[in-house]
Amino acid sequence: MMRTETKKKTLSIVKIGGNIVDNPKALKSFLNDFHQLKGNKLLVHGGGVMASKMAKQLGIETKMLNGRRITDEETLKLVTMVYAGWGNKSIVATLQQIGCNAIGLSGADANVIPSIRRSPVPVDFGFVGDPDPNKTNTTFISQLIESDMTPVFCAITHDGNGSLLNTNADTIAYTVAAACSRVYQTTLYYCFEKEGVLRDIDDPDSLIATMTREECEAYKQQGIIADGMIPKLDNSFRAMTEGVSQVIILHAKNLLSGKGTVLG
Amino acid sequence: MMRTETKKKTLSIVKIGGNIVDNPKALKSFLNDFHQLKGNKLLVHGGGVMASKMAKQLGIETKMLNGRRITDEETLKLVTMVYAGWGNKSIVATLQQIGCNAIGLSGADANVIPSIRRSPVPVDFGFVGDPDPNKTNTTFISQLIESDMTPVFCAITHDGNGSLLNTNADTIAYTVAAACSRVYQTTLYYCFEKEGVLRDIDDPDSLIATMTREECEAYKQQGIIADGMIPKLDNSFRAMTEGVSQVIILHAKNLLSGKGTVLG
Repeated sequence: MMRTETKKKTLSIVKIGGNIVDNPKALKSFLNDFHQLKGNKLLVHGGGVMASKMAKQLGIETKMLNGRRITDEETLKLVTMVYAGWGNKSIVATLQQIGCNAIGLSGADANVIPSIRRSPVPVDFGFVGDPDPNKTNTTFISQLIESDMTPVFCAITHDGNGSLLNTNADTIAYTVAAACSRVYQTTLYYCFEKEGVLRDIDDPDSLIATMTREECEAYKQQGIIADGMIPKLDNSFRAMTEGVSQVIILHAKNLLSGKGTVLG
Repeated sequence: MMRTETKKKTLSIVKIGGNIVDNPKALKSFLNDFHQLKGNKLLVHGGGVMASKMAKQLGIETKMLNGRRITDEETLKLVTMVYAGWGNKSIVATLQQIGCNAIGLSGADANVIPSIRRSPVPVDFGFVGDPDPNKTNTTFISQLIESDMTPVFCAITHDGNGSLLNTNADTIAYTVAAACSRVYQTTLYYCFEKEGVLRDIDDPDSLIATMTREECEAYKQQGIIADGMIPKLDNSFRAMTEGVSQVIILHAKNLLSGKGTVLG
């Protein structure tokens, strides 16, 4: 469902996962593709794989619940180091090398993505934040984009009261995409290590090429969509409700062709 | 020696060391003072103390030579995590909390401080960069300042060829101050844990209140100025040669009074 907001400039919001950020060769190849993507764009990256490795090296126990990291004070320090430090700046340096004027940002920088610390009830996830698209600083993001810069967001936000907050990278991508839809005609690309949403997770040929919200609900009921794909799709449809023109879930290697699951 | 460049707006460049960044209470108090400093300002911070602690925790050997860290690949990753990650974002979140619209930057972000990797001859310091004030992106720094943002620089730069580089924080402060002197009337504050340059390093009452370049050379000959103070003073006088109006070396707690060693 392409909307006909012809007056708005386009903006691609691309999210890549932690697996690719931890693989220098795959990351370089991906960033080359990203740089070739036409028009305005910005990147959101995870870093969970690196964080888990570093946690092991530091002897910090990784506690996960429903695929989400429980973030105590020690873990917050760790993920901030990994996501906002090594992960973010490595990506920025590589993009700069290939001629893309990248600028790395956490949600605290220029107060660009303020969040609310998640309630400790029913589950206390610790220093975990849920951002609000209505409070995202799209003026600043637009300023950067109009100055030919490419923002690169890591999955760290803040609460405005001095606390950094660990934030799901898919949710950051949704938030930025929804917020920027007030200014741009946006496409949100969720890149990961599968071809898209698959009928059979072990068969890359079982790609579901297009999916409506109703079809998504039916797939969930049938158990075809499960686990980590559920929050990704929930974020995707929520993004479309909030004005994102198109959401595509695809393999990182297919960014330029756009081949994957197109939601609509 | 105040210059009479009355047409230029003023800009304070404040450098704080790693000791204070590693001490949450002292840091908060310092950042409150920094926020109260009148006029345009930016912050440059170290993080060496945290980096050494983290190195120990990770079992990475800290190799120093003439007070400078030798940076192999593992150490580069470590310092990028600590300086650009936890250190930088903690400062930004605290400044945001007290109403200062801070934005954290490494030299790679927006290519703001490109560096040259230091020659491996005569000593191979590894991934260490020396920035060039003439290549510093003052247009971008000015844009941020004119938009009422406060840049917060960590001591990481890049070579433009994809490598991040560990860079001395005093040198970053000098570089940014020298570069910004083309646009602003600048004052450079080197904050550390002493009252300023002391005749007797153990006697805080032995402050040298003012110092010319000639006096500095004489003090060096007499051994009154030694060790880590030498590169700090070299950076200071170099900054004045390149247009910085005033350099003050002082205790972090005296930032607002400006009491310390005033160079001129």
